[in-house]
Amino acid sequence: MGDTLKYLMDESRIPKSWYNIQADLKVPAPPVLHPGTRQPVGPDDLAPLFPMALILQEVSTEREIEIPEPVREIYRMWRPTPLVRARALEKALGTPAKIFYKYEGVSPAGSHKPNTAIAQAFYNKEAGVKRLSTETGAGQWGASLALAGSLFGIDVTVYQVRVSFDQKPYRRALMETYGARCLPSPSNTTDFGRKVLAERPDHPGSLGIAISEAVEIAAKDPETKYALGSVLNHVLLHQTVIGIEAMEQLEMAGAWPDVVIGCAGGGSNFAGIAFPFIGKGLKGGRKPRIVAVEPAACPSLTRGKYAYDFGDTGHMTPLSKMHTLGSAFTPPGFHAGGLRYHGMAPLVSHLKELGEIEAVAYQQRACFDAGVMFARAEGIVPAPESTHAVKGAIEEALRCKREGKAETILFNLSGHGHFDMGAYIDYFSGKLQDVTYDEGELAKALSELPDVA
Amino acid sequence: MGDTLKYLMDESRIPKSWYNIQADLKVPAPPVLHPGTRQPVGPDDLAPLFPMALILQEVSTEREIEIPEPVREIYRMWRPTPLVRARALEKALGTPAKIFYKYEGVSPAGSHKPNTAIAQAFYNKEAGVKRLSTETGAGQWGASLALAGSLFGIDVTVYQVRVSFDQKPYRRALMETYGARCLPSPSNTTDFGRKVLAERPDHPGSLGIAISEAVEIAAKDPETKYALGSVLNHVLLHQTVIGIEAMEQLEMAGAWPDVVIGCAGGGSNFAGIAFPFIGKGLKGGRKPRIVAVEPAACPSLTRGKYAYDFGDTGHMTPLSKMHTLGSAFTPPGFHAGGLRYHGMAPLVSHLKELGEIEAVAYQQRACFDAGVMFARAEGIVPAPESTHAVKGAIEEALRCKREGKAETILFNLSGHGHFDMGAYIDYFSGKLQDVTYDEGELAKALSELPDVA
Repeated sequence: MGDTLKYLMDESRIPKSWYNIQADLKVPAPPVLHPGTRQPVGPDDLAPLFPMALILQEVSTEREIEIPEPVREIYRMWRPTPLVRARALEKALGTPAKIFYKYEGVSPAGSHKPNTAIAQAFYNKEAGVKRLSTETGAGQWGASLALAGSLFGIDVTVYQVRVSFDQKPYRRALMETYGARCLPSPSNTTDFGRKVLAERPDHPGSLGIAISEAVEIAAKDPETKYALGSVLNHVLLHQTVIGIEAMEQLEMAGAWPDVVIGCAGGGSNFAGIAFPFIGKGLKGGRKPRIVAVEPAACPSLTRGKYAYDFGDTGHMTPLSKMHTLGSAFTPPGFHAGGLRYHGMAPLVSHLKELGEIEAVAYQQRACFDAGVMFARAEGIVPAPESTHAVKGAIEEALRCKREGKAETILFNLSGHGHFDMGAYIDYFSGKLQDVTYDEGELAKALSELPDVA
Repeated sequence: MGDTLKYLMDESRIPKSWYNIQADLKVPAPPVLHPGTRQPVGPDDLAPLFPMALILQEVSTEREIEIPEPVREIYRMWRPTPLVRARALEKALGTPAKIFYKYEGVSPAGSHKPNTAIAQAFYNKEAGVKRLSTETGAGQWGASLALAGSLFGIDVTVYQVRVSFDQKPYRRALMETYGARCLPSPSNTTDFGRKVLAERPDHPGSLGIAISEAVEIAAKDPETKYALGSVLNHVLLHQTVIGIEAMEQLEMAGAWPDVVIGCAGGGSNFAGIAFPFIGKGLKGGRKPRIVAVEPAACPSLTRGKYAYDFGDTGHMTPLSKMHTLGSAFTPPGFHAGGLRYHGMAPLVSHLKELGEIEAVAYQQRACFDAGVMFARAEGIVPAPESTHAVKGAIEEALRCKREGKAETILFNLSGHGHFDMGAYIDYFSGKLQDVTYDEGELAKALSELPDVA
């Protein structure tokens, strides 16, 4: 048999703590502001939405935050995830580069999202919370929180962006199989949803609107808290198990990456693979190049403005400084629904400003080309979101080929595409087209950013 | 952290040989007969359909058949598969039984089928075969052969039972992603398909018809061979990696099963988990009870006749002695399309006659109840076929509870249900009903069995 293909670790090697990059930032990230007073929020401001343990994680500057044993117990269902050497893809590309991918699609929900869903459900359960509300785009996050709710005995209500609710009935069915309630957003179950529907009854929805609905539900009911699947510091924190494991597995392979790649929508899977490596650099170690790949149709890092903005369309959330296309911007419809968000995680945005990461944007047809090439070589069909990371890795591998460099490339394959085969059907039928946003709408949304001194 | 949940092995421990139960049978299985002469077939009779290496495996009585290195190389993409202790399910049932499941859904195609697809594609490639034709029901087999074709550079054409082709567009998309051509059967691309359509233009199709079409294509073109996803001895042989690995993993857990359970349609995943354990018994070791679980709507082992019959509806295949509902029997439509076959693997049938295995049949609603219970406890959504094994395991665990026995139960979770969420949608909406076959049609089909002296 040839050299090792899959680097596996047994469950005793699931990390014991998450890595908090805030401990190593030379310049701290700008504070989050109260939407009313525009002053930095305190823990009490967030208490209606989140349990205190998560609020404290949000602002913690401790480097290592212990993973509670009950969370590690459940992580064992699928963690540690495999690190795979993509030998067949390397061969298909004829590249001297070594390509490794960390495969998060082995989780029960099929993506990296349960890494934080389980943790959030645990802390909410500890705080006596009975119900959780959340939003979801393609449904990876909603399905993951539904799973976590089922395991911890918490009722989960998911507001799914209507276009995905209609396009992806299988993910909704998965949420229901795990016992959650899934509603299309905008819905008539919230004031904000009714307002949006009154203006436009056929509104396709957006993550920004779905967040407003889920937040409204939580804010009104003392027994309901809100859970977010990306963007926030504590969510990114929970995802760092990905990079921590990958580092150990690369050591098993006797390798260290020259470049680390993740797709970026809200930023959590990207942060999960990248932050532990950036941290090594911040502490003086050898730092790989770090590349975030985003969709050309919703390019917050490459085309957005670094500014304070709301996380939602209804302006119920605090203001965060981030790369944003404007909370009034409705991204056009494209298949990577999980990347269809107007903003970017404040920590990822901050690191971009500090020059620690690069960003690049690709159109969806090029990403599906890459996804199909990957599937035919490596067997795994990537989720539309993950095809962006695949595309990024292939581009780096082809650069290595041109330059004759045997670099080591690591990317995060954040999820499989089994629930997104409708997108592949469109791709093969020629119906899947590249999508561009309206420049005028973007300019208008950016002009409406909140005025923060 | 509690006791081990997942028993993993690294890729060096992929079995080096398959286990051939024919070596240990005290009474050999009855020979396969030529459809014309009704005399035992020789290797040359099968040569138009299969490469010689597979024909020799079909009749081999060697106990250990070496797995070629290139096949083991590809097995590494997902093998060894995990053996999981279903602690959450045990807790939910309140049973003193220990439940283990071998999880084959981690393969790129999501089921056990690639175990034989890769092997078959390898031997065909070695023999210089350019094209493979096959049939598929729900699509697990078609997707697996498509994957294998993509990895070995062989063109694959799949005839998919029309009702599944229409109901499960995502699995068809998966086959196309791997580069295969997928046609609904009955089709107008074969003489037999055209004949069936002439009689009934809206025919929903059946595995028996799809086999006839795929065989016809292969028989007419010297560069095309035929591949079957179950039933045949060599297919069952390739699946024994499941049971061989499970045995090693149970040893890691310090356990030995009292009962081994698999769902049975054509019989290959059942044989894969069961034959190595039956073999231990045949060689004088401690034998667990072995239980095959089949659908009540297509109950070949529990209601069929043990007799010579054709493997296909068009009567192009040889005659095998097996439990059969009659090749003229069209099973009613139900969601476990992979179990919708009139016959049963001759080796499984033979072992049933020898008293080595038990069989039980369940209706689909009870199986989906079990599948949803499993998903909410263990996280994994089982394929409709696999819910039958889950149901069987739960029934055994509840028996242990009633009897106060701490038995060890092992079952094969042959695949995940990500491509079958339409069935779960029907289940939750109340549309999924139990299905019964027509007793008159069964009696008629059994009366038409070929007359073999």
